[in-house]
Amino acid sequence: MKLARVLRDGLAGAQARVVALDLASGVAIDLERTEQIRLERLGSTSKAARRLAAAKLPQSLADGLGSKTYREDLEVAFAADPPDDAVLQISELHWLAPIDPPRFRDFMAFEQHHLSARHVLGRPVPDVTYTLPTYYKAGHLALLGHAESVRWPGYCEWMDYELELGFVVGAGGVDLDPEQAASCLFGVTLLNDFTARDRQREETAGNLGPAKGKDFGTALGPWIATVDELDLLEIELTARVNGETWASGVSGSAMWSAAEILAYLSTAEPLVAGELVGSGTIGGGCGLEVGRQLAPGDVLELEGTGLGILRNQLLAPDELVWSPPRREPGRTIDGRGGVGLTRLLPPRDDAAAPPFPIDRP
Amino acid sequence: MKLARVLRDGLAGAQARVVALDLASGVAIDLERTEQIRLERLGSTSKAARRLAAAKLPQSLADGLGSKTYREDLEVAFAADPPDDAVLQISELHWLAPIDPPRFRDFMAFEQHHLSARHVLGRPVPDVTYTLPTYYKAGHLALLGHAESVRWPGYCEWMDYELELGFVVGAGGVDLDPEQAASCLFGVTLLNDFTARDRQREETAGNLGPAKGKDFGTALGPWIATVDELDLLEIELTARVNGETWASGVSGSAMWSAAEILAYLSTAEPLVAGELVGSGTIGGGCGLEVGRQLAPGDVLELEGTGLGILRNQLLAPDELVWSPPRREPGRTIDGRGGVGLTRLLPPRDDAAAPPFPIDRP
Repeated sequence: MKLARVLRDGLAGAQARVVALDLASGVAIDLERTEQIRLERLGSTSKAARRLAAAKLPQSLADGLGSKTYREDLEVAFAADPPDDAVLQISELHWLAPIDPPRFRDFMAFEQHHLSARHVLGRPVPDVTYTLPTYYKAGHLALLGHAESVRWPGYCEWMDYELELGFVVGAGGVDLDPEQAASCLFGVTLLNDFTARDRQREETAGNLGPAKGKDFGTALGPWIATVDELDLLEIELTARVNGETWASGVSGSAMWSAAEILAYLSTAEPLVAGELVGSGTIGGGCGLEVGRQLAPGDVLELEGTGLGILRNQLLAPDELVWSPPRREPGRTIDGRGGVGLTRLLPPRDDAAAPPFPIDRP
Repeated sequence: MKLARVLRDGLAGAQARVVALDLASGVAIDLERTEQIRLERLGSTSKAARRLAAAKLPQSLADGLGSKTYREDLEVAFAADPPDDAVLQISELHWLAPIDPPRFRDFMAFEQHHLSARHVLGRPVPDVTYTLPTYYKAGHLALLGHAESVRWPGYCEWMDYELELGFVVGAGGVDLDPEQAASCLFGVTLLNDFTARDRQREETAGNLGPAKGKDFGTALGPWIATVDELDLLEIELTARVNGETWASGVSGSAMWSAAEILAYLSTAEPLVAGELVGSGTIGGGCGLEVGRQLAPGDVLELEGTGLGILRNQLLAPDELVWSPPRREPGRTIDGRGGVGLTRLLPPRDDAAAPPFPIDRP
């Protein structure tokens, strides 16, 4: 199945609806509405049909994925005969990000991106590249759908894109091995991890990872293809800027598989239904790696086998309302100052010494 | 007000309930139930009273904070005469994390922590310490309440705690200045950011920030004190391990205020009702800074003026189910290999050159 979330006008204002796409016919089916009519035809009262359809196929795809019967419910609705008002023209859809995830974590699963990005920045490739699948916690509350515009933060002078896959988690779980984790993968979508490179560079010197360099907007979509439709090693990926190809590659060139990534995420903390996981940038899949930067008005297109084309345009830079003023060392907000080094405590007698050398007097 | 979330048994199993604390009387009031009875006494039907009480004072505190009238609704319910079954003994509560936030970001707002932690690790203090309020995206889906035990991940040999404040966002907003942002702060709680220092050290070498070093569990509570009850510069904070004081300090020794932190968060992406923001570790407020590490079974207590005592015990180390195997350079998951450096593209003629030197041939 190909699933998307779209905005539809209703009596309570616009609301998100989960749709299944029939690309051959150029239509998208509103699944909740179709299920409601299907249940009515089977003899349920209109009120009961509405209640059941809303519970089975909620506006939130992430909420839906919490139900073990969700996949079956989706298929039953998609196989039913839809009423006219549930049949939407794909060309007229108002696309949202196809998942409304409770969390979004983004990996660096492609070795070539590690090598090239660091080469360009003049940095060594750290050993952790080969010992752990590394990731950062990304912004799940500023996701954009296909055709939505991307804001350009006022603090950014060097804008970039990143060509990635987005993995959508179906079943959750904790402390899984890769085989178990493989069955947690529900579907895949295209993901454009827009990046303010200059801010990313400044803030990551603090060793806490990217923040304002990333979280102003990540584009996702247009749809989620369920895993049964895909060969996860053979997704051909392309990125175009204003129609010119800047990058291409294949999903199988990763160094960590989706199953390994999900298993690692599930270690010591639960993986959750509906969460979004980025693969990280495919080799060459950003301007940094090819020596180019983006400009306001640029139109970005990501394309992937079975995943369609995700198109987004960059807006003009925002005006910056407030910037943090530089701090003087030793200044505290209560004006008392007195910042110094912390005094060491004597060693514990009930536990081992710290495992790393501590050279303080 | 002092607000908490507790687990109560109901007909559909255990559920979270928002309570207000009356410390002098040793009781906590179930606000939704009290509001329901208040509305019934005013003449609403039982069904309407239930519906309205559930909408005004939902199980999710974060959902509640989305309503502009929530603070008033809380106070009306707390001022009402509670039915007997809404009066709970504080000594018998099953505490949850007092907020169920849609997101959690954690700062490093205390200069002394920057200085001391890096001194111990033998690292320089980067300039960004003084130019930006830096933060990492933390784990909002593994929060623990007062008295809950903390798992010790199997990959961790060096466990640590961090003494912090947790700021709870009331009203949201975007592109705020600090004055506007100050009015978005709803309340404050104690926050213990448990940390696997060895894993943090390994993974942050990848420049994506802490992940498995942090997200296995963060403790929060016992309650949220609303800002009208506090002097944000005068919260005395203490940390004890097995009864021994390891750290103490005052909230006003920060280099960035809560208002500045929230304003920065709101830049280029919306701040959201109910989200959680950590202050970062107060100077000296972790084992790393004082030359000590934690051991299984340790009991951690954080205490703060007006914020109570947050107590959590560390469990024995977990068994590790799966660890990522080391990768060989050049290996891809499809077995084709061929990883190298990305080729540069010729310069764009429609945009400026990259602002940073790119030394690739």
